[in-house]
Amino acid sequence: MIKNLAITGGTHGNELTGVYLVKKWQKRPKLIERSNFKTVTQLMNIRAIKEVRRYIDHDLNRSFGSTDLGNDSLETYEAKLAKELNIKLGKKGDENPNVDFIVDLHTTTSNMGLSIVVSNMSDTTWRAIAYLCQKEPNLKVYRWQGDIENAFVDSIAPHGFAIEVGAVPQGVLRADLFLKTEALVYHLLDFVEKENSPSLLNLPHQLEVYEHKELVDYPRDEQGDITGMVHQDRQDMDFTLIHEGDALFLTLDNEVMTYKGESLYTLFINESAYYEKGFAMTLAQKKIVLIKDCSVEKIET
Amino acid sequence: MIKNLAITGGTHGNELTGVYLVKKWQKRPKLIERSNFKTVTQLMNIRAIKEVRRYIDHDLNRSFGSTDLGNDSLETYEAKLAKELNIKLGKKGDENPNVDFIVDLHTTTSNMGLSIVVSNMSDTTWRAIAYLCQKEPNLKVYRWQGDIENAFVDSIAPHGFAIEVGAVPQGVLRADLFLKTEALVYHLLDFVEKENSPSLLNLPHQLEVYEHKELVDYPRDEQGDITGMVHQDRQDMDFTLIHEGDALFLTLDNEVMTYKGESLYTLFINESAYYEKGFAMTLAQKKIVLIKDCSVEKIET
Repeated sequence: MIKNLAITGGTHGNELTGVYLVKKWQKRPKLIERSNFKTVTQLMNIRAIKEVRRYIDHDLNRSFGSTDLGNDSLETYEAKLAKELNIKLGKKGDENPNVDFIVDLHTTTSNMGLSIVVSNMSDTTWRAIAYLCQKEPNLKVYRWQGDIENAFVDSIAPHGFAIEVGAVPQGVLRADLFLKTEALVYHLLDFVEKENSPSLLNLPHQLEVYEHKELVDYPRDEQGDITGMVHQDRQDMDFTLIHEGDALFLTLDNEVMTYKGESLYTLFINESAYYEKGFAMTLAQKKIVLIKDCSVEKIET
Repeated sequence: MIKNLAITGGTHGNELTGVYLVKKWQKRPKLIERSNFKTVTQLMNIRAIKEVRRYIDHDLNRSFGSTDLGNDSLETYEAKLAKELNIKLGKKGDENPNVDFIVDLHTTTSNMGLSIVVSNMSDTTWRAIAYLCQKEPNLKVYRWQGDIENAFVDSIAPHGFAIEVGAVPQGVLRADLFLKTEALVYHLLDFVEKENSPSLLNLPHQLEVYEHKELVDYPRDEQGDITGMVHQDRQDMDFTLIHEGDALFLTLDNEVMTYKGESLYTLFINESAYYEKGFAMTLAQKKIVLIKDCSVEKIET
């Protein structure tokens, strides 16, 4: 039984879709009311939203690790904010969390379309995703595994994921993608209402997911400055396969650098915020998730 | 005779195309060498470039007005920087300017394609534009007139304009548009070389231009926050006509606001940096410029 769901927007202050969806719903809460659970909304990084920046001191969506949340000596704006938000929304790891499910709204400058980034492997999380894929056949699912997922906003609740929508520049609202994000959240609320009621949902038994494999950084000089950009043939080709020998980067000297390695799917190609994080795209394998027990089985790419 | 031309990049620190073109040419100056004039390159807003922000205190590309340049009491980062850059590149209004021609490299989140924003009406400026339009038939020319053009970077030299390329998110290099911008600058250098030599250039006698008419702001609440976004049917429709009754905005309450007024061309639709400046797009009329004497004649839209 899900008693509380939180919709969080503005975790990154320059991703306006989540900011304005939350503002919309705070004005018109009826739109997100359902019969058998409570939905709360939260504008996350208030200062960054005001300054239309991703963050003030460091990325809020990397600030919810248990160690950091328990470290009283951290003095940055986002470290303190994460603690406040955890008390309000999560109480991470607590037996009685304030919120059972978090959906965190993001946009990306990559051509990711309508996608979900998920690390949580709970049954409820994946049943929700299965329902959304049923309602939105174009929805893509990226299963993120690495060092950082335990510090994501949605990690403070027992169930949840992030919605990533693109391509949208920072500081911009695109009506088409705003409407798609809004519709997806309504589907999620409908799912929770149905999941909470005695009627049995008829969900797909397996889901196609893109499982994170590795990060690919830009070519860089000794000072760390980039010396090339995503090749024009790879730009916007999110969720497509890259094969050995395909054009990957174009250097500033007009040389084409090609891809070396096994065939994998390219995601988050040329996301603005990842220049400083040190990657030009991520690589993923296509797998299937069996919904019954949430185990992950590899299929051939 | 043009003796010196300056290519300026990073006037806005989050518009990477100009930043990395300048870095490229500073490493490989042969690429921009021509036989009969000198080309200099300048990275403009160094601090903003480092922080990948448009500016630190205020917009550098509104900081070159003669009054501001002559006002020693201005203490902002950009006000001081503008004075330094004016001494180095311009000496605005001086009989012996350091630089005869400035081309200032910009990108926009709007779908502006390859375009020129020009206020200067000098013969040389418009002969250059005519040559570029001959070489790049898709190039669009936006003649800006308002209160701010005298404060643009290119206003400190006798001749010049800005190149605007989009759609590119801030903090992102798109290889396709990087290459188009680079090619356009090479055409400009070729023009200057030919213009400086005795041979006569065979230029078009008239040019189609989009002449600035007015700004259209977003719907806003009493606090100035936007209450609507560019309608999905108008998004990306830069350089197309909008007619009375066409969808203009979609409010956060899902109401369609339509356009009222004469048929005009919409430009700079949904540029990120203009949310704070107070406009969602600009409106322009199509006119022709006669190259011989640079007079501007209206033609029917």
